[in-house]
Amino acid sequence: MADPVPTQTELIYDGRIVRLEVLNGRYEVVRHADAVAVLALNGQGEMLCVSQFRPALGLTTLEVPAGLMEKGEDPAAAARRELQEEAGFDADLEKLTFFYASPGFCDEGLHIFAATNLRESRLPMDDDEDIEVIWRRPAEVLDELRDGRTVGSATTVTAALFALGRQMESR
Amino acid sequence: MADPVPTQTELIYDGRIVRLEVLNGRYEVVRHADAVAVLALNGQGEMLCVSQFRPALGLTTLEVPAGLMEKGEDPAAAARRELQEEAGFDADLEKLTFFYASPGFCDEGLHIFAATNLRESRLPMDDDEDIEVIWRRPAEVLDELRDGRTVGSATTVTAALFALGRQMESR
Repeated sequence: MADPVPTQTELIYDGRIVRLEVLNGRYEVVRHADAVAVLALNGQGEMLCVSQFRPALGLTTLEVPAGLMEKGEDPAAAARRELQEEAGFDADLEKLTFFYASPGFCDEGLHIFAATNLRESRLPMDDDEDIEVIWRRPAEVLDELRDGRTVGSATTVTAALFALGRQMESR
Repeated sequence: MADPVPTQTELIYDGRIVRLEVLNGRYEVVRHADAVAVLALNGQGEMLCVSQFRPALGLTTLEVPAGLMEKGEDPAAAARRELQEEAGFDADLEKLTFFYASPGFCDEGLHIFAATNLRESRLPMDDDEDIEVIWRRPAEVLDELRDGRTVGSATTVTAALFALGRQMESR
């Protein structure tokens, strides 16, 4: 069994969004800001999604509004900002969950919120973002992810499953 | 708007589990193997969890049995192998979903399976793994993740939400 508590750190790369370290000469670890994502449902039970090209995959994904937290920013404030930037809505937010994207090698945490009381409020988008807003039924999104017809993220799946749970509860 | 299709790749680091590239002098991208994770429920509606120390976080997480796919390995075969290594069970598997852990910077895909018809079958664990098996109620795990009492991963949340959905359906 390996020594579990890292005591020695070698810095490999310190970039714009990624910092790569090797701990104890053995564990490759990516440091990355935490991120936020938002589940917003409309009156028809559809989920607010964004479609965008992801260079890391070379693919266009279906996700929910999401983005990195800025230094010192509160998770709920970051979520409201991203929702305004990517979809043009402000809202009241309720925390759904927090989890790590891939704790085997990366420290990125994801704060997931539910948005209610949506009202129009747009903030300018980042220059390098080209995002299409689409409303989709959560059950359909889950079917398409399973069958490989749609490419999604951890936040897509989590939001769709929370949405489905709320719809089942309210029946 | 930036050029969406990367045409130029700079290799920064090529390690054991992480390969770091910069695309078009702009996009920091981590290449990482795809992984598998398994939701297994017992007759009491509890979910098979594993607890382990994660050097990338400096924390002990609650996750479901999971691990990286080996080169050329089929996702279901990898999931059966991980379930046997980490928890000592073989099972029949059903695909639940596929998603990317963090597509903004990383190409790691996650295949999630449901395991049924569990039977004891142990494979030796990797040398550097020190894992404790725990059965937990999905609703409790979700409450604890939201309140910050438990540290979990995308696979923990996804598995717990699928489990809850199945329990609600069968009521």
